[in-house]
Amino acid sequence: MEIKPFYRKPNFYETDQMGVVHHSNYIRWFEEARVHYMEEMGFGYAKVNEIGLDFAVLAVTCEYLAMVRFGDCVSIEMSITQLSPSRMTIGYRLHNTQSGVLCCVGESRHCYFSHHTNRPTSLAKAIPELYQLFGSLLQKQAN
Amino acid sequence: MEIKPFYRKPNFYETDQMGVVHHSNYIRWFEEARVHYMEEMGFGYAKVNEIGLDFAVLAVTCEYLAMVRFGDCVSIEMSITQLSPSRMTIGYRLHNTQSGVLCCVGESRHCYFSHHTNRPTSLAKAIPELYQLFGSLLQKQAN
Amino acid sequence: MEIKPFYRKPNFYETDQMGVVHHSNYIRWFEEARVHYMEEMGFGYAKVNEIGLDFAVLAVTCEYLAMVRFGDCVSIEMSITQLSPSRMTIGYRLHNTQSGVLCCVGESRHCYFSHHTNRPTSLAKAIPELYQLFGSLLQKQAN
Amino acid sequence: MEIKPFYRKPNFYETDQMGVVHHSNYIRWFEEARVHYMEEMGFGYAKVNEIGLDFAVLAVTCEYLAMVRFGDCVSIEMSITQLSPSRMTIGYRLHNTQSGVLCCVGESRHCYFSHHTNRPTSLAKAIPELYQLFGSLLQKQAN
Repeated sequence: MEIKPFYRKPNFYETDQMGVVHHSNYIRWFEEARVHYMEEMGFGYAKVNEIGLDFAVLAVTCEYLAMVRFGDCVSIEMSITQLSPSRMTIGYRLHNTQSGVLCCVGESRHCYFSHHTNRPTSLAKAIPELYQLFGSLLQKQAN
Repeated sequence: MEIKPFYRKPNFYETDQMGVVHHSNYIRWFEEARVHYMEEMGFGYAKVNEIGLDFAVLAVTCEYLAMVRFGDCVSIEMSITQLSPSRMTIGYRLHNTQSGVLCCVGESRHCYFSHHTNRPTSLAKAIPELYQLFGSLLQKQAN
Repeated sequence: MEIKPFYRKPNFYETDQMGVVHHSNYIRWFEEARVHYMEEMGFGYAKVNEIGLDFAVLAVTCEYLAMVRFGDCVSIEMSITQLSPSRMTIGYRLHNTQSGVLCCVGESRHCYFSHHTNRPTSLAKAIPELYQLFGSLLQKQAN
Repeated sequence: MEIKPFYRKPNFYETDQMGVVHHSNYIRWFEEARVHYMEEMGFGYAKVNEIGLDFAVLAVTCEYLAMVRFGDCVSIEMSITQLSPSRMTIGYRLHNTQSGVLCCVGESRHCYFSHHTNRPTSLAKAIPELYQLFGSLLQKQAN
């Protein structure tokens, strides 16, 4: 499993009148990074939806260390920091690719929500293949 | 039917690095104005959804005449310019409430989309009460 | 200083395909609540900008306890949890006004950024009047 | 001048509770397409900003022909339909890359706004190199 890093150029409409990317957009970029990583792992998020699941967001945190501007390019590195059949915690590190500066670190906590039962469910039971893929990613990080 | 005008203060996150409200947000404000007017008419849009309908957007136009900034307040006046059982065209006029300047005029064209059939439908048949309310608004404008 | 609570109806465009308000929007609502409270305190944020300051966001956290849907109405209660000449921490509690359910708690941490020096600055020195207002709010909460 | 087409995967947060991409986002994608094309032409929009210009939006139109969903991929083809020293009109055609279906056509009209004078300006005078590049694109389309 070779995962290409997630690169993102800020959009003009993501800036605010301070002349920098508005802080709320980083939360959206984290979501984009999740989607990118899952596609790279061979199990796209749209497929998860088709099976009838969503990764509901339980919490997010985001620490802003350096501003990002239109014209910059950033990379977002994602890692799984906790994984259980019912929960997952994901960490994010956002760098400016030109300067190498770490601009932001964040985290999101998720449960797996079933469209069928309208309740949280076990990912290990609902999509064992994906649960194993996340497990491999966790292991790979450890090495 | 007495309809209160729709007032809106631009949010900081709606500005861009030009120091003004980003043009895409006006399209969203038009939607807010539609929702406000329907609530004022006594038939909220959430109720339309519950019945199993959506007003799909077929087209939008927006002409930007003067910039709007954070700290301003705007009013959006909405009018129905065309109404048929299968289609509706809505016009918008956005004024700066402090200066009185007309900042933007726009239009949106809609059909009524049924969740049940997954196809366009007749509003006159699906929700006759609402179709009549729109008709009264059209008439009221004419007078 | 009597502060009216901040009420907000979710916009249709703030929902996602899960049928609920997308989690990133709460971060934006926190900003709206800050702007509302400052206006209620008699010192609007646009005035802060005119003086040449911005409240840069250093960090945000948000815990999602119950989903919010289009058609709901929420209130956001804001409190100052830490205040110093160079930093401020703000807490948020978002309730569904119909059910009374607590849907979300969050926090944002800020420094005061000067447009003149392009550096963080002391609010106590830059706008003593506003610093005192925040101090009174902090005190009022304690009582 | 060989220009790579602009490809875009809808983000999850760009969907609404109808289960499709919200119509306001297409206006933002048009902007992304403009930025992409300029970069491909070798004169990025951030460079335009550095020189002290912005392409202010005078008007947009967008016709929605087929819905776009999360999991789809779209291409946006951009063409210059009118060009003068003081104005530019740009056309957009958005296709679903999997089905080939034309999902949306749109247009945006611009003037060139100078940060130095705070007024509209001539692109031909302000950035002759870029004006020529747009001219070549217009010519290339004609052939």
